[in-house]
Amino acid sequence: MKIVRTIAALELLGEAGLVPTMGALHDGHRSLFRAARAENEVVVASLFVNPAQFDVAADLSAYPRDEQQDAEIAEEEAVDVLFAPSVEEMYPAGFATWVDSGDVGAEGAARPGHFRGVATVCVKLFNIVQPRRAYFGQKDAQQAAMLRRLVRDLNLGVQIRVLPTVRDQDGLAVSSRNVLLSEGERKEALALPRALARGVEAYTQGGDPVAATRGALNGLPPDYVELVELDAATVLAAAVHVGPIRLIDNVLLKGNLS
Amino acid sequence: MKIVRTIAALELLGEAGLVPTMGALHDGHRSLFRAARAENEVVVASLFVNPAQFDVAADLSAYPRDEQQDAEIAEEEAVDVLFAPSVEEMYPAGFATWVDSGDVGAEGAARPGHFRGVATVCVKLFNIVQPRRAYFGQKDAQQAAMLRRLVRDLNLGVQIRVLPTVRDQDGLAVSSRNVLLSEGERKEALALPRALARGVEAYTQGGDPVAATRGALNGLPPDYVELVELDAATVLAAAVHVGPIRLIDNVLLKGNLS
Repeated sequence: MKIVRTIAALELLGEAGLVPTMGALHDGHRSLFRAARAENEVVVASLFVNPAQFDVAADLSAYPRDEQQDAEIAEEEAVDVLFAPSVEEMYPAGFATWVDSGDVGAEGAARPGHFRGVATVCVKLFNIVQPRRAYFGQKDAQQAAMLRRLVRDLNLGVQIRVLPTVRDQDGLAVSSRNVLLSEGERKEALALPRALARGVEAYTQGGDPVAATRGALNGLPPDYVELVELDAATVLAAAVHVGPIRLIDNVLLKGNLS
Repeated sequence: MKIVRTIAALELLGEAGLVPTMGALHDGHRSLFRAARAENEVVVASLFVNPAQFDVAADLSAYPRDEQQDAEIAEEEAVDVLFAPSVEEMYPAGFATWVDSGDVGAEGAARPGHFRGVATVCVKLFNIVQPRRAYFGQKDAQQAAMLRRLVRDLNLGVQIRVLPTVRDQDGLAVSSRNVLLSEGERKEALALPRALARGVEAYTQGGDPVAATRGALNGLPPDYVELVELDAATVLAAAVHVGPIRLIDNVLLKGNLS
């Protein structure tokens, strides 16, 4: 595996699959790497903690970073190129152009500027790497739907592939932020996937999935619990606070995201 | 010359030069076509009156359109492909992604949303046509500088080429909007290039180019007269109203735009 730190040094041969990451790689990323490996000649993983998509400075500074371990995981999953640029390489002095995805609701409303930061860095990565396909997890369902629309709106030639959320055995969606949870918080956090499961039950029985989810959060303060319409799917999405950590999760109610 | 109306039907072979236009082609466009013809295997002209960059509805509806004449001019200048999409082809239902170029001052301040519309349509055209080079006139100096920055910020692989403003014998910068001037207005409009020439004179003599220009507008109401810093150049730029028509022009004071 080659580690590349500048745009100029990135030479690509063949049809590429891109897995954009912010590092702190986990089993969710592994599933994206495997899908990319199966479908492309060249697999590129980007490793960039994108300041532009953090709406809270403390969240950015606390974000877990361990490049050596990330490189080992990427290597194990047969990634060909790890693109790990500096902030200055991605946002040089005088940077002033932003891609506004026009998203509202759920994550868009809860995190002002978040999707603008994601949209901008993804357009940059798509133009730098020029992948045939790019891989995202269903856990960030709104992000994936936003990027599909962005690709269509701006006529980009990349296919957005969405892979199912990977969960630990206890049902918690794997996330880079999970390592920040204490043992006790980790147990409390399980109320999130369980509450969403109550929401799905309510939905299939003709009830109100949002109310059912809210009622089952076991005291975790929610940022939002919402039905989100995405392209060809409806998801039940929630964000909650577990101690100092904010976690998101969602389940598919209707349609599909793949 | 091939006329293409849909993105799907646009098949490009070879290295392309793109000249984005809103039609109503004039000698300024001819100079761009000739530069593109000299430097590229394939020359593509786009012909699209982009609603997103008009801040005033009456200006959009009055904008001169004559596709047959435009096609003849493009053919004469050896354009290979005329890409003339519909509004629905470029902005289909559900369109929601905008490129914000972050511009302020002069045209940016005078026409809210204008540069956002230009930035968005140009990113779309660059992605659709995938040109090696794209051609713009110095008359829209701020636009050219904004696009250079956009290309750098979003890591697009297109070179922005800027050609000198073409003027009629009397000094008026050629513009699609000139055909909307009455004979009397056309004469009044000459105060704009003459006032800018007074500004250059004042500048070279150590005086105030903005005041000199303002003082020589011969009663034409200005939207603005400003020094605009662009990348490696300083231009003296002005917008004025001549009867119902708004005209812009600028002259280079320092550096270069090419």
